Amino acid sequence: MALIVKKFGGTSVGDVERIKNVAERIVRTKKDGNDVVVVVSAMGKTTDQLIGLAKQINQRPKEREMDMLMSTGEQISAALLAMAIDSLGVEAISFNGPQVGILTDSSHTKAKILDIEGDRILEQVRKGRVVIVTGFQGRDEKDNITTLGRGGSDTSAVAIAAALKADQCEIYTDVDGVFTADPRVVKGARKLDKISFDEMLELASLGAKVMQSRSIEFAKKFGVTIHVRSSFHDGVGTIIAEEANEMEAPVVRGVTSNIDEAKVTILGVPDRPGIAAEVFKKISEANINIDMIIQNVGEKDTTDISFTVDKSDLDRLKDIMDSVKESVSAKRVTYDNEIGKVSIVGVGMKSHSGIAYKMFRVLADKKINIQMISTSEIKISVVVEENKADEAVNALHTAFELDKDVIYEAKL
Amino acid sequence: MALIVKKFGGTSVGDVERIKNVAERIVRTKKDGNDVVVVVSAMGKTTDQLIGLAKQINQRPKEREMDMLMSTGEQISAALLAMAIDSLGVEAISFNGPQVGILTDSSHTKAKILDIEGDRILEQVRKGRVVIVTGFQGRDEKDNITTLGRGGSDTSAVAIAAALKADQCEIYTDVDGVFTADPRVVKGARKLDKISFDEMLELASLGAKVMQSRSIEFAKKFGVTIHVRSSFHDGVGTIIAEEANEMEAPVVRGVTSNIDEAKVTILGVPDRPGIAAEVFKKISEANINIDMIIQNVGEKDTTDISFTVDKSDLDRLKDIMDSVKESVSAKRVTYDNEIGKVSIVGVGMKSHSGIAYKMFRVLADKKINIQMISTSEIKISVVVEENKADEAVNALHTAFELDKDVIYEAKL
Repeated sequence: MALIVKKFGGTSVGDVERIKNVAERIVRTKKDGNDVVVVVSAMGKTTDQLIGLAKQINQRPKEREMDMLMSTGEQISAALLAMAIDSLGVEAISFNGPQVGILTDSSHTKAKILDIEGDRILEQVRKGRVVIVTGFQGRDEKDNITTLGRGGSDTSAVAIAAALKADQCEIYTDVDGVFTADPRVVKGARKLDKISFDEMLELASLGAKVMQSRSIEFAKKFGVTIHVRSSFHDGVGTIIAEEANEMEAPVVRGVTSNIDEAKVTILGVPDRPGIAAEVFKKISEANINIDMIIQNVGEKDTTDISFTVDKSDLDRLKDIMDSVKESVSAKRVTYDNEIGKVSIVGVGMKSHSGIAYKMFRVLADKKINIQMISTSEIKISVVVEENKADEAVNALHTAFELDKDVIYEAKL
Repeated sequence: MALIVKKFGGTSVGDVERIKNVAERIVRTKKDGNDVVVVVSAMGKTTDQLIGLAKQINQRPKEREMDMLMSTGEQISAALLAMAIDSLGVEAISFNGPQVGILTDSSHTKAKILDIEGDRILEQVRKGRVVIVTGFQGRDEKDNITTLGRGGSDTSAVAIAAALKADQCEIYTDVDGVFTADPRVVKGARKLDKISFDEMLELASLGAKVMQSRSIEFAKKFGVTIHVRSSFHDGVGTIIAEEANEMEAPVVRGVTSNIDEAKVTILGVPDRPGIAAEVFKKISEANINIDMIIQNVGEKDTTDISFTVDKSDLDRLKDIMDSVKESVSAKRVTYDNEIGKVSIVGVGMKSHSGIAYKMFRVLADKKINIQMISTSEIKISVVVEENKADEAVNALHTAFELDKDVIYEAKL
């Protein structure tokens, strides 16, 4: 008898019929003799609808109030799912994040989980009940409701699996698993059977949309093996685990793109020590996540700094940049909404020096201009024009032979 | 500087525009130098939509899960109202019932308030903030979410006003105040400037729809003076207070009807002591409220018992009645959904013996058949056919001269 944590995303519980299907699936696992704890997102478009309501009332609502508002979405789906399971003759009980002691910091709309009191969940599991917990949310030490930000339900699921020492953590999603590229963009994209935490981390943070990166960090930290699988059929998906270095592993595992970021460039900043710190201090205080950062030497004694942020943070950022511009005596700040970040990911990439060259060559052959470059141990990212992103992904997918079910080794 | 509790119902916050209007109204009171605590219901049809979702999934959802589901409605409107007030430059903060320690018993979907920890509200009021609290809900001692049942927001508002020792409790509604009869049914219905707790209690429980009866009981118990007024204009409404007997008070204050009840009749029950107790024991255990009860002598050695319940409880009741029928060896149980209860209300009615006769005479003249009769100190209720209820109300309103702004004294 295993303790299994199952997480269902917004699409999986998008309407009444789907909620019933999910309930049947849960009941099957339960009747197989397992204990089941379910983490659930808000139904389909609920979150967007709530944001829409808020924006009609206040263009810049307080984040604490946004959390009050948004957290209702998961509570609705959790209660409905409990009712659906109950109607199949299996006892179920739903809890919201605060009720089961999911303690977070106070960074409203992007809170971090600090601790989970698993007792209340386990008490119900021991009574033979299926326990449904709202994803995406918790409470801070002053009992304010917090949310973990978009995709936070994955993090909730992994954190709960870790706290309960669950045997498995299954993430149900609207795709079959983790792919070498987005199948909607690349025809020959293939499902991966297994991927390491680190590789998935890069894929997740680079916009592969399957799982939120913070949830993978959590899983890596607490050694929670994840099974990403389809909520529409019983097929096996992709296992994400701490992987021994497999000799046969291809160097490049996947290609991914992200068009949800915007590029910000500060031009004509005096070139002196501490200037970068000054630029990013206020941004960090506002809890805005920066992705790529690049600093180039500009005209005499000045420098240009570029970075990317989530488009959703751009409004807030513009206010901050006005005062940053003043304080660092910069000449000008420009914004570019129409960028796409394209990345290739794979463990061992660093030891294959030809990979970067090959990537740039492929893009050059397609006449795709590279605006920014950033590299890590296991990924290389470039920023290109937004409308070239899909073409770049396809070209790279083919060039690195990801469509072929064979062992790839970089040759140069 | 006064501390004012304002309660806005579902219609008052029915859409984005109305929420903005309510916010402006609150800001005006705040800027006049008052402290304001707001209790808010779910937006317009939200509650019905949530019930609809639940019914699609489970015909008899667990009441605990219904409370999880339903309580989200007020949390949405509370957060949105806080945002709207904030956008007008006044700081506002929203809380749900559990957060501000509204402690109830564990009777899910119709819980009773046991205690309110006012500290968290007052702490925020002292910071100069408008505090928005979700009506209709609280938590039990095990931290399960509970709801107070339909109209429970009124009770929340009065209970919070009592706990905070507020100077005023204003109930905003879609009517101008308390009327001598439902203005939609009776053309000549007049607004009352003042009414006593006891009279309002009868009107509320009889279906006058302005305020929930439990909230009036609370107000009477804790001496909270209520001002029922329109949410659409600034006109004065009706004051509900503990009233000294006014000599000029008319005997009949109002006429009201309620078509939300159903009649249940148990036929052929053995006529022996304890039989009524046996009938109502199981119903009371199921927490179903009984309204009128009548017992008639039937055929030899048997008796017939009739009573009325809320139509919404009828499904659950039918199950219970099956076993009640067995245990009391009754012949048959019948149900009638199509009844209307028509009542006249007024302090001092008992001392004017002609009132009942006049009421029955008026109905007889209209050929309206009376199925059940029930009387109290300050009201007389009759059950008639549902489709005769409006006609009965109009006839009684005219007969007791409630459309005339004069002193009425029963003459007989």
